[in-house]
Amino acid sequence: MDARSRGLFITFEGPEGSGKSSQARALAASLRQRGLPVALTREPGGTPIGDQIREIILAPRNTAMAPRTEVLLLSAARAQHVAERIRPALADRQIVISDRFADSTLAYQGFGLGLDLAALRALTAFATGGLTPDLTIYLDCPPVIGLARKARAAQAGGEWNRLDQKPVEYHERVRRGYLALADAEPNRWRVVDAAQPADHVQYLINAQVGQWLEELWTPPPSSRS
Amino acid sequence: MDARSRGLFITFEGPEGSGKSSQARALAASLRQRGLPVALTREPGGTPIGDQIREIILAPRNTAMAPRTEVLLLSAARAQHVAERIRPALADRQIVISDRFADSTLAYQGFGLGLDLAALRALTAFATGGLTPDLTIYLDCPPVIGLARKARAAQAGGEWNRLDQKPVEYHERVRRGYLALADAEPNRWRVVDAAQPADHVQYLINAQVGQWLEELWTPPPSSRS
Repeated sequence: MDARSRGLFITFEGPEGSGKSSQARALAASLRQRGLPVALTREPGGTPIGDQIREIILAPRNTAMAPRTEVLLLSAARAQHVAERIRPALADRQIVISDRFADSTLAYQGFGLGLDLAALRALTAFATGGLTPDLTIYLDCPPVIGLARKARAAQAGGEWNRLDQKPVEYHERVRRGYLALADAEPNRWRVVDAAQPADHVQYLINAQVGQWLEELWTPPPSSRS
Repeated sequence: MDARSRGLFITFEGPEGSGKSSQARALAASLRQRGLPVALTREPGGTPIGDQIREIILAPRNTAMAPRTEVLLLSAARAQHVAERIRPALADRQIVISDRFADSTLAYQGFGLGLDLAALRALTAFATGGLTPDLTIYLDCPPVIGLARKARAAQAGGEWNRLDQKPVEYHERVRRGYLALADAEPNRWRVVDAAQPADHVQYLINAQVGQWLEELWTPPPSSRS
């Protein structure tokens, strides 16, 4: 990490059921095996205050939530996440892997709900203090496949939250939004086909991240394990 | 209310312990006695979702809360409050009285915590969709008096929250901020000396609001009681 003054910031994005959480965990494990210091975290949440906010956002009882309320709550959790967890880990030269970050707001509340993208970018800049990811892995997956996966997992006792109750057209708009964001910033985004078996997705992610790290930065001989 | 296409929006502002909640209730009762339709509400809160947010903001355990998190949570509660409660009541031509509104953000997080006022105004415009009060009653009170009142009330079982734990210099900055806001918009603000006995403060508020209503608008003969 001697080549940089701070650590690296990698985010996972993707629709519901695209396997982000599992793949973020797998990437963290793989990098740790290589002796790299990794901080794995997620949005919304990632801090005790963020978890309290996440509960409000996802509670099925809160159907009256206005779109602006939802985006402000997500931004609040993000601001806490950045201040309490991400910035300190980056200052400590760790590789921070976050399951979702600011691009989720643009995809879900911007493209999905139709809120003004310029206003959302300004809000996000306020919440993050201008922090942007160095690399974003987008797990692309048709909503019908992702939602079916989540429904099966929910039947087996997994989570089924307020966002999952929205119509499939909403999730289609979210997906198109993600693809537009990836197109606009190809240096930062890597699009991975997440409709494939999880093992193969994991292999593709490791290959992409490995190549990116080699181009970017060679770990010092004495890096922490 | 035939002279206007929507109701009226009156807000109460002031430091901790200035008696805003009691005075807002008293004004609501007084206007209702005159046969006017009144919706009394408060920030943060005023809706079930807002009350859940309010709990996070005020919980003494949440000492790690970043300043940007605090202002985003307050804005989230405000967005819900505007969408679910204030706009529908105004559309129904009621007089909406709110115990705190957007000016609290400018006073507490702007002048008190030192966040950028322009960014806060943009955030507030997003949360409220541009809604501003028609009249704002500012209950002015030296922080030492207000905090002593709250401490006495807390000993008798009243609320003592995370904001009350801040140093008195913070509350002094908040007060100076309020006075600056009132100076900048004298048509909207009325400054009332809240260090006086509550009965007298109530008398002054009724006189100010009564005069404002007479200048503004004459109630129809058949207004609701």
